[in-house]
Amino acid sequence: MKSSTLHLAAFGGTPEFIRPLHVGHPNLLEVDQLAEDLVQVLRSGYLTNNGPRVREFEQLISRVSSAKHCIAVCNATTALQIAAKAMDLHGEVIVPSFTFIATPHAMKWIGLEPVFADVNPESHTLDPDSVERCISEKTTAIVPVHLWGNVCHTEALQRVATRHGLRLLYDSSHAFGCSLNDQPVGSFGDAEVFSFHATKFVHSVEGGAIVTNDDQLADRCRRLRAFGITGLTEISDLGINGKMHELSAAVGLRTVAGLPVIQKANESNRHLYQQLLHDIPGLHLTHPESGVSSNRQYVVITIDEDQFGLSRDQVVSLLRSEGVFARSYFAPGCHRATPYADQPLRTPLPVTERLLNTVMQLPTGLSLRASDIMRIGKLIQMLQQQSTEIQKQLMVRNGRCNPHPADPARMEISLKEAG
Amino acid sequence: MKSSTLHLAAFGGTPEFIRPLHVGHPNLLEVDQLAEDLVQVLRSGYLTNNGPRVREFEQLISRVSSAKHCIAVCNATTALQIAAKAMDLHGEVIVPSFTFIATPHAMKWIGLEPVFADVNPESHTLDPDSVERCISEKTTAIVPVHLWGNVCHTEALQRVATRHGLRLLYDSSHAFGCSLNDQPVGSFGDAEVFSFHATKFVHSVEGGAIVTNDDQLADRCRRLRAFGITGLTEISDLGINGKMHELSAAVGLRTVAGLPVIQKANESNRHLYQQLLHDIPGLHLTHPESGVSSNRQYVVITIDEDQFGLSRDQVVSLLRSEGVFARSYFAPGCHRATPYADQPLRTPLPVTERLLNTVMQLPTGLSLRASDIMRIGKLIQMLQQQSTEIQKQLMVRNGRCNPHPADPARMEISLKEAG
Repeated sequence: MKSSTLHLAAFGGTPEFIRPLHVGHPNLLEVDQLAEDLVQVLRSGYLTNNGPRVREFEQLISRVSSAKHCIAVCNATTALQIAAKAMDLHGEVIVPSFTFIATPHAMKWIGLEPVFADVNPESHTLDPDSVERCISEKTTAIVPVHLWGNVCHTEALQRVATRHGLRLLYDSSHAFGCSLNDQPVGSFGDAEVFSFHATKFVHSVEGGAIVTNDDQLADRCRRLRAFGITGLTEISDLGINGKMHELSAAVGLRTVAGLPVIQKANESNRHLYQQLLHDIPGLHLTHPESGVSSNRQYVVITIDEDQFGLSRDQVVSLLRSEGVFARSYFAPGCHRATPYADQPLRTPLPVTERLLNTVMQLPTGLSLRASDIMRIGKLIQMLQQQSTEIQKQLMVRNGRCNPHPADPARMEISLKEAG
Repeated sequence: MKSSTLHLAAFGGTPEFIRPLHVGHPNLLEVDQLAEDLVQVLRSGYLTNNGPRVREFEQLISRVSSAKHCIAVCNATTALQIAAKAMDLHGEVIVPSFTFIATPHAMKWIGLEPVFADVNPESHTLDPDSVERCISEKTTAIVPVHLWGNVCHTEALQRVATRHGLRLLYDSSHAFGCSLNDQPVGSFGDAEVFSFHATKFVHSVEGGAIVTNDDQLADRCRRLRAFGITGLTEISDLGINGKMHELSAAVGLRTVAGLPVIQKANESNRHLYQQLLHDIPGLHLTHPESGVSSNRQYVVITIDEDQFGLSRDQVVSLLRSEGVFARSYFAPGCHRATPYADQPLRTPLPVTERLLNTVMQLPTGLSLRASDIMRIGKLIQMLQQQSTEIQKQLMVRNGRCNPHPADPARMEISLKEAG
């Protein structure tokens, strides 16, 4: 255990974790059986183009999400684009700024204009009132995000959409397996899009899916996923290649089958974090709202700098030096990213602004041991307890933290500048 | 051997091949070693996001194609889009109509306007004169296709591009491993895009790559492939998810390593086809032009209905009934597909029109045995020799051929209608 600030890796001490812990380290179960599945795929000769594993994967996703149709796609960004094109969206779409950049970028890439609305301070999901303030004559859809596996305020959003004649396309990248009052994510709005990227608690390495109860929309999404081809010599729509292949689907089938085990591990991790972090001043572990059953794939905390004694950016940097590769999603905020930074906001984003400076994520998942979490918890406790001394050290070092040898970013961030 | 037309599967006989032969059946070598590679990927925990196998794959592709940079992408359609966006293309792009629909669709999907030019009757690649007739003030690029592994008339196309200040982006989906006068495909124009789809002679199940000698263009393609993210909290460009994952790259590494073996098999297949088909009236086996070294991944023939006695569509249907799943790429022609059919052509496409009605592909690749090719050759000989009798039978049946039980299309095409 580190007792003195001098032992902190940021200041020259040995990192607490030589092998770093990542947010979103891929979960894999039953690797031997999965390996056999992959060999079977290879030997079958049926490797892609709507193969049997993809179709089985789609049935499984439909079942879990209570959606009539599932269209597996090579990734969630492409899935969002296919769904948007299948709905004939044009003009403006309302999205949160507090989301992974893929949400607005997927829309902008195909010529739609993302307009950023604010989020609810508790759930971190789109604020329906803020959405309403963003609607213009050009608006054709709302694209809310079930962030961290919290479920959006779906009834209020549906009312706004219905009142203004807008399509409702959920980016449910974080929320596979979640539900609101026992209604599974996958059955809200006109369509929802899941991500099965390797960083998600269940995944197909890269992958995504569109789910919908709308027969025609599903048919069109299928067409658009494979070039709009509808026969050996018939092309009846403008489509692209959005196909998931059989190796991905084989991984997806195994991880989704392991969902209960993974979710249980995440719940247990979260419980331990809760015990270790609950009484640290200025640190708040976020909870899903009432009625929401979450997949618990993210451990999200907020740091109140005044009470904690260190800023969120300082905590992230100090932890990263120790090999705890915490993240500060979604700084700097989509509305500050290229190409959106130059366009005026239609509505202020006060909650988003605050969250962008205070929210961070800690590692969880199958690969994390209880002892790892204990050590992370103790580290964070120590950071808070010795925050005054740490601030002094950071001042002397002009804000610099020694980077962890394995840090891909090697981020020698000047915290003074960042702060 | 079938001696009577009554034995033809189209007319109720037993199919020559119960297990059908496909154009583009995936080539796989050393499946056991490949399976081990896949297990290693799983155990490494590094599954995607510019992993070590993807980087190794990129180096290999660079080496083979003599291009300074390679950016591996989830598929070639996405690769074309990333390259187009990285070049800031806008307005119109000139493409052949005689190509797989992905070429124009990739462009149209992101708001560019494909304008169709005609092709050369020998090489089936873009005719530089026709290209020049299509150029308008709105044109920003030419997107030629090295069809069937024939290499385009690169010098003439470069002259046109330079004269009009246009970018030159090659769709080289068919032409990995090919060269023109010893200059490898991959080093022409501003950038080239390869396909490594499972139907290609070497493949990564799904996959593509951008190759270029332009440092800045390569950097931007890399950025656009991963959401424009350039740091832990920095997003500096409009990007999407175009990532190839590690399982795909592992397959790609093995198949590209096996390129000489696969190419040799294809050459041997082609040689045998040549022997069997060379003296059939009205049948022409296409050859690469002088100076072109082709990967031989397609066996492309043309059928002259008057001399052969049957139309290309009839030959395709009769063969498909027998389990020889020949294809008639690229009927009906991109310019007749949605959403292009309604727009006027800028220049006539007489060569394209002729090829659309006469060109067809026969199976080749590792899975084809010499005895299979012998049987296919004999079948085609018989079709030609008994074409008069077959035409009578088709007339009686109102053009209908019995579909092969395994035909995914179950295409009970009325040849009368199709003709």
